[in-house]
Amino acid sequence: MARPLEFDKDVALDAALDLFWRDGFEASTIQKLLVEMGINRGSLYSSFGDKQTLFTAALDRYEERLRTLTESTLNRAGDPLAAIRAFLEERFVAVDRNTLRNGCLLTNTISELANTEPELARLAGRKLQVVERPLLKRCQEAVAAGKIRSKLTAPLLRDYLMTLYTGLALRGKQHGNKKQLRSVIDHALASL
Amino acid sequence: MARPLEFDKDVALDAALDLFWRDGFEASTIQKLLVEMGINRGSLYSSFGDKQTLFTAALDRYEERLRTLTESTLNRAGDPLAAIRAFLEERFVAVDRNTLRNGCLLTNTISELANTEPELARLAGRKLQVVERPLLKRCQEAVAAGKIRSKLTAPLLRDYLMTLYTGLALRGKQHGNKKQLRSVIDHALASL
Repeated sequence: MARPLEFDKDVALDAALDLFWRDGFEASTIQKLLVEMGINRGSLYSSFGDKQTLFTAALDRYEERLRTLTESTLNRAGDPLAAIRAFLEERFVAVDRNTLRNGCLLTNTISELANTEPELARLAGRKLQVVERPLLKRCQEAVAAGKIRSKLTAPLLRDYLMTLYTGLALRGKQHGNKKQLRSVIDHALASL
Repeated sequence: MARPLEFDKDVALDAALDLFWRDGFEASTIQKLLVEMGINRGSLYSSFGDKQTLFTAALDRYEERLRTLTESTLNRAGDPLAAIRAFLEERFVAVDRNTLRNGCLLTNTISELANTEPELARLAGRKLQVVERPLLKRCQEAVAAGKIRSKLTAPLLRDYLMTLYTGLALRGKQHGNKKQLRSVIDHALASL
């Protein structure tokens, strides 16, 4: 029996995002997506297109969540290094265990799909700009204000912190040990 | 027409490793594995068991390659920080583009399978000990020799460097920019 077409697209897309984030692109089969989204195959294709298109919509939504987080941390007024610390701590320490165990959907996607779905992996890489762009701005501010002891330029500082972000996301997924992540953040920020 | 059962198991396993490393566990379908390994389905199952068992054998082989690398770098005589630098540079700078673009099979596996094949992800995590163990030893040496300016203990130093290793593997996969990876390594080591 076909279910009615009326359903909350936002709710269904959130459910798809949660599945992709937890299990990855390949393991999130259409069948699993239908169950999690609570819709039928016809509704999925008519409302969201194919799996790649649905995944792209999930990446958009994840990017918006990450943007909300950077607005309240990375972009906040005041000391640029404190803002960077607030971002890393909100993302990797002040989170529940499940969020930590899911890693970052963007870095997960680069890791899983770089060689098999390069368009989706590149899209995820571009979406990481939502972190990289404000991070660079705050690094420039920190350098200009003489707050950086090391000889790193702002772009290198940003590359270093993005490498750290990527590593923290995957280590959190591996062991979920927030105390360890916090110590790593402490050392990394003290080293600038 | 069935092909003869005689084939070089080592060569076939290397081919499976290369596919898993490049494309991940899920995207390496049995059909693709058969093509890359140059064997038929019967030989695959009789010689290597199911896909999970084959993947485990590929992880074993990858671990051995990583052990060979750590023997000549991390475990070499002399200054412990120079040994750590040699390991990171051999792994992320003195490699060809394809190796960089494949990332690290162990961290790839943790990223892809943590929530869908937790046994395989945990196995990959344990195999990372092939790096973590000698890394801790060299960190202890460096701390004991007064070569560490920061207040990090040897285990925290190891956690920091493993976070860096993980981030470098994934960033290399994303952009393949060795110059950037080298700058990040330079800063991280100068910060200790």
